[in-house]
Amino acid sequence: MESLSPAPTFCEPLDDDGLAEPTFLDRLFDQGLLVRTGVDGLYGRSGAFESVVEALDRLIGRLGAADNAEVLRFPPGMSRPAFERSGYLKGFPNLAGTVHSFCGHEGEHAKLLACVEAGEDWTAGQRATDIVLTPAACYPLYPVAAARGPLPAEGRLFDLQSYCFRREPSLEPTRMQLFRMREYVRMGSPDQVLAFRESWLERGTQMIRDLALPLAIDAANDPFFGRAGRMLANNQRAQGLKFELNVPVNSVEKPTACLSFNYHQDHFGTTWDLVQADGEVAHTACVGFGLERITLALLRHHGLDLAAWPEGVRRVLWG
Amino acid sequence: MESLSPAPTFCEPLDDDGLAEPTFLDRLFDQGLLVRTGVDGLYGRSGAFESVVEALDRLIGRLGAADNAEVLRFPPGMSRPAFERSGYLKGFPNLAGTVHSFCGHEGEHAKLLACVEAGEDWTAGQRATDIVLTPAACYPLYPVAAARGPLPAEGRLFDLQSYCFRREPSLEPTRMQLFRMREYVRMGSPDQVLAFRESWLERGTQMIRDLALPLAIDAANDPFFGRAGRMLANNQRAQGLKFELNVPVNSVEKPTACLSFNYHQDHFGTTWDLVQADGEVAHTACVGFGLERITLALLRHHGLDLAAWPEGVRRVLWG
Repeated sequence: MESLSPAPTFCEPLDDDGLAEPTFLDRLFDQGLLVRTGVDGLYGRSGAFESVVEALDRLIGRLGAADNAEVLRFPPGMSRPAFERSGYLKGFPNLAGTVHSFCGHEGEHAKLLACVEAGEDWTAGQRATDIVLTPAACYPLYPVAAARGPLPAEGRLFDLQSYCFRREPSLEPTRMQLFRMREYVRMGSPDQVLAFRESWLERGTQMIRDLALPLAIDAANDPFFGRAGRMLANNQRAQGLKFELNVPVNSVEKPTACLSFNYHQDHFGTTWDLVQADGEVAHTACVGFGLERITLALLRHHGLDLAAWPEGVRRVLWG
Repeated sequence: MESLSPAPTFCEPLDDDGLAEPTFLDRLFDQGLLVRTGVDGLYGRSGAFESVVEALDRLIGRLGAADNAEVLRFPPGMSRPAFERSGYLKGFPNLAGTVHSFCGHEGEHAKLLACVEAGEDWTAGQRATDIVLTPAACYPLYPVAAARGPLPAEGRLFDLQSYCFRREPSLEPTRMQLFRMREYVRMGSPDQVLAFRESWLERGTQMIRDLALPLAIDAANDPFFGRAGRMLANNQRAQGLKFELNVPVNSVEKPTACLSFNYHQDHFGTTWDLVQADGEVAHTACVGFGLERITLALLRHHGLDLAAWPEGVRRVLWG
């Protein structure tokens, strides 16, 4: 397995004015680009904001078009049995969102309404459904791919996008609880999936450069839960399984992961009995694009007025 | 207040072949247009299916473009306090989906994983967050609009679209638990909002005719919960507050509401202290488009091969 050679990195300083009060988030609210809902990390988006998200989504599609990925779109919730089997609860129990519903009759309904009226907790009677919010665009995919039987010799490539949920309320606009992730997912041999990841390290870096954003590619780890999680995180980083393309958005010290490049080894293949054409367990890799995060990076570096963005950037986005 | 005069209606018979085994849903799975997840009403969508959803979304935008609606996009979850105040729990407690999360430490995490491992219920420790799944695209809008103060004299018009959740598992492909709703919402005087609804009854009818689908416009009611709900439903229907544009999809006897035209009177205005320029409580109305439902109607009537759809329909959708 060849080692990865990330593209050379650079990182320009942020204009410090942007970090003073009002905060970047305040300015996004003031301009109406994001809309307050009263919940940190849960925002409405303006038409202008959405026009950037949509342009990025199309741009990523163009960059990947030659690969002929199979397009699948899943809703923002997934099957709970599939979620349980995925192993997400081992690593990130605190980030998951389960969907619960009311199963009572009229008597219980009257009590529920009395609780709401009195400002008391009415949620104790809610029961877990068989749906969990999607934590990453690729999670619903693996069981679907495995159900098709062994991979063909050339493996498979999927193109995904969905709203994802992570329970981490924050005042950093780049850390939303509900956000959209575009993803390409490659399944096949270790060589196939590593070559895929390598190609997207190049394409993704070029894309962000074309958008005139400063960037750095860094080895990274997922935010595994608890003390045991720290070891997982260290292993992941040491083995070069995860790289992130970081752009300073909220601060220079803590830049924001806008793209991530992940080699899962045989984790999902083993979990889902997904095998290659020769019967060997499949390896998988994905590249994920944080559509809101890249949008916020563009707004942070090029300003809140889209019409005033550099002509070259506008051309990349809108032709 | 003038009475509504819905457009003349007609309804052609469905080709009976489509109702025999395999069911329409089975055929959608077989063709890969929808993808099984193991949960009824929760499906993946193919690229072809999505291309229709996207074309419909753009078509609706073109039909409404002259009105210069303000575009806002909310994620598929909304603030729980806003949801509680909205009154949704009075009418539809059984359809709501609350989002719950794990708040424990490592000891509780170990127990949770042991439950998952043993196939036991691990969700008892999940706690309700301040997020509820969006039940209709307009629900997050009202508090946002009210926070801006009194409406201008001409009122306001919003353009919304989001994934919505309704807890009603079903094998009818038109009854999904997570689906997308495009909506225009008008706020103003009774005359303003009724004129808006009238104009969309015409536009919506013409749109569905242009798509060569049979339709009927019918007085309708929301599926209010319980015995008390039946009275609400009867009142809503008798007062002509809700019309639906129905297209036979699963059957001729129970056609599918693909568009709905709703006059809320002062319900949301009173709930959210939303007032007109003169201080009178605002009235609201909305037109909602079920994007998956219209897509399914097209697939049902024009066939599962998009390339073989009537040329006129393809031109309406893709120019």
